Amino acid sequence: MHNQYFLALENAAAGHRVSLDELLEQLAFNQDGLIPVITQCADTCQVLMQAWMNAESLRKTLATGHVTYWSRSRNQLWEKGLTSGHTQELLELRTDCDGDSLLCLVRQNGPACHTGRSGCFYFSMKPQSDQAAVLESRPD
Amino acid sequence: MHNQYFLALENAAAGHRVSLDELLEQLAFNQDGLIPVITQCADTCQVLMQAWMNAESLRKTLATGHVTYWSRSRNQLWEKGLTSGHTQELLELRTDCDGDSLLCLVRQNGPACHTGRSGCFYFSMKPQSDQAAVLESRPD
Repeated sequence: MHNQYFLALENAAAGHRVSLDELLEQLAFNQDGLIPVITQCADTCQVLMQAWMNAESLRKTLATGHVTYWSRSRNQLWEKGLTSGHTQELLELRTDCDGDSLLCLVRQNGPACHTGRSGCFYFSMKPQSDQAAVLESRPD
Repeated sequence: MHNQYFLALENAAAGHRVSLDELLEQLAFNQDGLIPVITQCADTCQVLMQAWMNAESLRKTLATGHVTYWSRSRNQLWEKGLTSGHTQELLELRTDCDGDSLLCLVRQNGPACHTGRSGCFYFSMKPQSDQAAVLESRPD
C-alpha cells in the first residue's frame, strides 16, 4: 500500500509543510471513492466512532470545520449532528504514513453514538475469553 | 448498515454478556472479508494506526493476545512486530454499535509506525488552512 508521495515524505522533519491540495490528491480512496475515518474526542481522547469520507465530504469538513461523512447506507453526504444536534467541531484532521486513513480530532457536542452512548465502541472483548460484554448502558 | 443482531442489543445494559462466537459471526466484514481496525495505545490514548483484519486474524488476535492483522499488500496474516520486535499486546478489543469496525486497545512495544515514529498519523491539517504539516520527525 506504499504510495510514492508519502514514501518521499517519510524523512520530513516536524514542522515541514506541504500543500493541502497536493496532499489531498494523493490520498488513497478505495474503489468506491471512500477512505476510512477515525473520530476521536480531543478532550477525553475517547475514540468515538469510525465512518467514511469521500473527497467531497473531506473538503467540506476542512472548509467548514463541521465533520461531514459519506453515508454508505443513505448514499449521501452526512453532516454529523445536522438533525440530532450532536455535531462534531473539527479541531484537527490527520492522515497516516501511507495516506489511506484519516483521524479527526473533534469537540463532540452531546453523544456521538445514535444510541445516546458517548461513543460507538461499547462491545468489549478480552483475550482468551469466550464472552463479550456491553460497556455502557443506553442513557434514559 | 444496521445489522439486526446489533440493533437488538442497543438497549442492553452495561455488564450484559453475549457469546463471543455469536458476536464474531455477526460482524460486518466487507466484500474482501475484511473489517477496519483502529489501534489505540491503552497508556497514552494515542491512536497509533489503522489496519484491517479478516476473521482468521481476529480470532488469532483474541486467542493469542498478540495483535495480528491481514496485510492487504502482502495478502497474508501480519502479526505486528514479528520481524521488528514492535509488538502490540492486546488488552481489550471492542466493536461498535453496528459491528462494522474494531478498536484494539494495546500495550505498544516500541514505535507503531514503520518510520520509527510513535504512531502513523503524523500529517496534520487544520480547518480553513491550505497547508498540511508534519507533526513528528523520524527518529535518528
